[in-house]
Amino acid sequence: MENGSELGQIIDGPTNPMVTPLLNDLYQFTMAYAYWKAGKHNERSVFDLYFRKNPFGGEYTVFAGLEECIKFLANFKLSDEEIDFVRDCLPGSEEAFGDYLRGLDCSDVEVYAIPEGSVVFPKVPLMRVEGPVGVVQLLETPFLNLVNFASLVATNAARHRFVAGKSKSLLEFGARRAQGPDGAISASKYCYLGAGKLFGIPLRGTHSHAYVSSFMSTDEIVDKVLRSADGKTTCEDFVSHVQTWLKKIQYSPSLSGIFSETNQSELAAFTSYALAFPKTFLALVDTYDVMKSGIPNFCAVALALNDFGYKALGIRLDSGDLAYLSREARNFFCTVERELKVPGFGKMVVTASNDLNEETIDALNKQGHEVDAFGIGTYLVTCYSQAALGCVFKLVEINNQPRIKLSEDVTKVSIPCKKRSYRLYGKEGYPLVDIMTGENEPPPKVGERLLCRHPFNESKRAYVVPQRVEELLKCYWRGSADEAREELPPLKEIRERCIKQLENMRPDHMRRLNPTPYKVSVSAKLYDFIHFLWLNEAPVGELQ
Amino acid sequence: MENGSELGQIIDGPTNPMVTPLLNDLYQFTMAYAYWKAGKHNERSVFDLYFRKNPFGGEYTVFAGLEECIKFLANFKLSDEEIDFVRDCLPGSEEAFGDYLRGLDCSDVEVYAIPEGSVVFPKVPLMRVEGPVGVVQLLETPFLNLVNFASLVATNAARHRFVAGKSKSLLEFGARRAQGPDGAISASKYCYLGAGKLFGIPLRGTHSHAYVSSFMSTDEIVDKVLRSADGKTTCEDFVSHVQTWLKKIQYSPSLSGIFSETNQSELAAFTSYALAFPKTFLALVDTYDVMKSGIPNFCAVALALNDFGYKALGIRLDSGDLAYLSREARNFFCTVERELKVPGFGKMVVTASNDLNEETIDALNKQGHEVDAFGIGTYLVTCYSQAALGCVFKLVEINNQPRIKLSEDVTKVSIPCKKRSYRLYGKEGYPLVDIMTGENEPPPKVGERLLCRHPFNESKRAYVVPQRVEELLKCYWRGSADEAREELPPLKEIRERCIKQLENMRPDHMRRLNPTPYKVSVSAKLYDFIHFLWLNEAPVGELQ
Repeated sequence: MENGSELGQIIDGPTNPMVTPLLNDLYQFTMAYAYWKAGKHNERSVFDLYFRKNPFGGEYTVFAGLEECIKFLANFKLSDEEIDFVRDCLPGSEEAFGDYLRGLDCSDVEVYAIPEGSVVFPKVPLMRVEGPVGVVQLLETPFLNLVNFASLVATNAARHRFVAGKSKSLLEFGARRAQGPDGAISASKYCYLGAGKLFGIPLRGTHSHAYVSSFMSTDEIVDKVLRSADGKTTCEDFVSHVQTWLKKIQYSPSLSGIFSETNQSELAAFTSYALAFPKTFLALVDTYDVMKSGIPNFCAVALALNDFGYKALGIRLDSGDLAYLSREARNFFCTVERELKVPGFGKMVVTASNDLNEETIDALNKQGHEVDAFGIGTYLVTCYSQAALGCVFKLVEINNQPRIKLSEDVTKVSIPCKKRSYRLYGKEGYPLVDIMTGENEPPPKVGERLLCRHPFNESKRAYVVPQRVEELLKCYWRGSADEAREELPPLKEIRERCIKQLENMRPDHMRRLNPTPYKVSVSAKLYDFIHFLWLNEAPVGELQ
Repeated sequence: MENGSELGQIIDGPTNPMVTPLLNDLYQFTMAYAYWKAGKHNERSVFDLYFRKNPFGGEYTVFAGLEECIKFLANFKLSDEEIDFVRDCLPGSEEAFGDYLRGLDCSDVEVYAIPEGSVVFPKVPLMRVEGPVGVVQLLETPFLNLVNFASLVATNAARHRFVAGKSKSLLEFGARRAQGPDGAISASKYCYLGAGKLFGIPLRGTHSHAYVSSFMSTDEIVDKVLRSADGKTTCEDFVSHVQTWLKKIQYSPSLSGIFSETNQSELAAFTSYALAFPKTFLALVDTYDVMKSGIPNFCAVALALNDFGYKALGIRLDSGDLAYLSREARNFFCTVERELKVPGFGKMVVTASNDLNEETIDALNKQGHEVDAFGIGTYLVTCYSQAALGCVFKLVEINNQPRIKLSEDVTKVSIPCKKRSYRLYGKEGYPLVDIMTGENEPPPKVGERLLCRHPFNESKRAYVVPQRVEELLKCYWRGSADEAREELPPLKEIRERCIKQLENMRPDHMRRLNPTPYKVSVSAKLYDFIHFLWLNEAPVGELQ
């Protein structure tokens, strides 16, 4: 029962143990009490979870966080301590309310959702949650919390992947700047989902400036022995071997004169690091001076490693003019390859990592660069350019009565009714439009002409003849996960869905500059009903 | 031992159980391995944790997160599973490294820090962490993670408090938009720290639009009985009583004609809510139309409650022109007070909550408004206007050798040496300047003239005669918390420190527009040493 075992299939609790029914706004419990007091708590309600605007000035969003929501549902149960806490916050609440809370679970709740990792659009419900209003009201804040940031960071990662280009690696460096511990851990997961090839390069290859400056000179290195990669030979003094190479580089015709003395503490740090990680040597080269010290020191160590059968991975640049420095570094590597006859040395991996984001990567692309991998930290995990997605959770039906939330701001009017939604595909295989219909309307049919209407603008409408129709909301929870048709796939499959869907969008929706909005519509019948309800609920003015 | 009991005083683990030594970048473990391989892991190192720039375009920052860092230290221990995981990530690492990790704890670490809740400035270390380089390196990412967001959100809350004004209440509404669960919970804590009077109004009084639209009509209300506040009388039909008041308002000379029919589902929701919470009735009035429906309905319920000895709290506005609507609502309340002779009715609390932030509150102030309490969500907890603080953790000394991290960007050069720092106060009692000195320099003395130098700009320097000298770094951990002089105070005390310090700053540092930067300096001796070291480490160029 603790972990939903009573319900058959065992679903683990949320990844973060702090995700409990008390991860909530107090007013949800206040409302639960008011529903209960009014005897309304068991009224069947339908809520839609959706967002109103794509983030980052783009025209698409990646949906993430569903699995955590289902894990939360499956284990939804208030402990006695939690119930006492809630009742303490609601002075005067009746004791029987505690009994009601004690019996609460999600065995009468149904969740339909778009699969995690899907490309999604404003106004179309990501999740449709149905059940007794008393319990569904308590799901609002946790669900929003779990979906908002997950979807935002997955979208952010997808956008960074898009601008970096498929051939480049992306590394996520953000744990230190994330918004708290969970921000760090969940960001890593959802970045992987959205960006795909993250961690393409072994992260273990890198180190920090502190590591470099913790050394004073190569005299510090006591154990200088390096066994060759094939285990057949042993270099007794790897330090001298590195120094020999440094001299060779310095006096080689095309490289002589570029630098004089390199920094000795840096050379010691690189050498020592290579002794610890001969197979995955990747050096941070900007602690003192990239071209006058970091690159020559790196090359000396890499060439020394090469003599014993090890291939260095490459360098990391963390400051300065990354476009220029990456090109200079590449030149240096190619010159070494040519002059010192070391095949492949020019292909050394160049990683860049100084507060990178979509704009700076785009600017690097325009300047021309030789970076192979981008390390993205703050801007990726904190979603610096937009810190929140703004999902909402709105009541659309109660007791089979459709409900609407009005607002002077039309973008804030909710779309009433328990609904279905479909994605309609065109001849070229691209998605053309998403359409919402009432629950009981017949689904759109392949090859049949259909009117798609903007939900609020009467002049915007279009006929579509879909070549393929995909129903978007699938059942993930029907009292338990057993009766649901959809499995919760592993992260890898979610990521594959995401990549496939991103690739299948018409390119003009995806571009960074002035992307075309993807169309979201309602059926003619739903359109008429929305506007009937609107007129019905809005108070009539009184001209004076 | 699990919770530091072996060290005497028992310190609980971090609030979030996900904060373990594995909340780390893998490269910290990579470096730990390289230090260990090189036999350097026990070298005594000193790291400074500081930030380079105040957030939100301001000139001050509130330091928070220290308590969580100490809780983390006190319980720092790698489990066997964690050690296996680390070793799996470092293929080829020697087995003895696992034994080293198994024995690691913070019994040889010292932490000096500025007290939590202090007003702090760029470059001055918030924490000075000293210990064996192998273990201190593993503290970098968790410490940065715990301090970065905590300080950012505490600063954000302080700024919101500043613009809202002391007399207003601030409510934190952000759980649903926070960056994950921990973002929500720690944001609440640190907002309280920075903003003070948060939660000044009982949050239990409020509800959502869904609650309002979940009702269809007053016919739904079954239990209409309300017992009076003093328990002496009972109203058998509170619903009719409300309707009677609604008519009275409608036909009162100054109010007639402002509205005609109010929305019946809203009236039902308000009435039902008042029956559940007669003592703390606060209504969300914008579901249909604020002036034509929400306010008259609220007043009818509030007046009905008043007859039975209950005082309604007020209203919440969540959309529209908040300045205008709050003034109109106030007028309505005052008219009700006057016309219907209900003393105090005009003082009803007006809460506003639609995506508020510093700018919108400032704009409201300029337009003139009647809002008593601001509910701030997304912008407060996600730190929307700046999503990260950018704290860094830099090696400043190892084996008693001062270390410097150079950069072409002067703002990124680190200030070397194990240091002390002092805040110097002027005649008017305001802090004048913070000064860093070498560990062994004599401290500044009250009444004695002292040269304060900008660390990197030789022309910026000033003599100061301090009227008061405050040493900033206090000892919070010396192998254990027992030997430390400073206690970890409760949140309430931290908040009081914060409020006191904010109030004691010279106003021009604190203003929103063009605030004056607070001065941060180094002693003449430290200045000379920084520049000696800089010349020493920087490679000499080669003109061609």
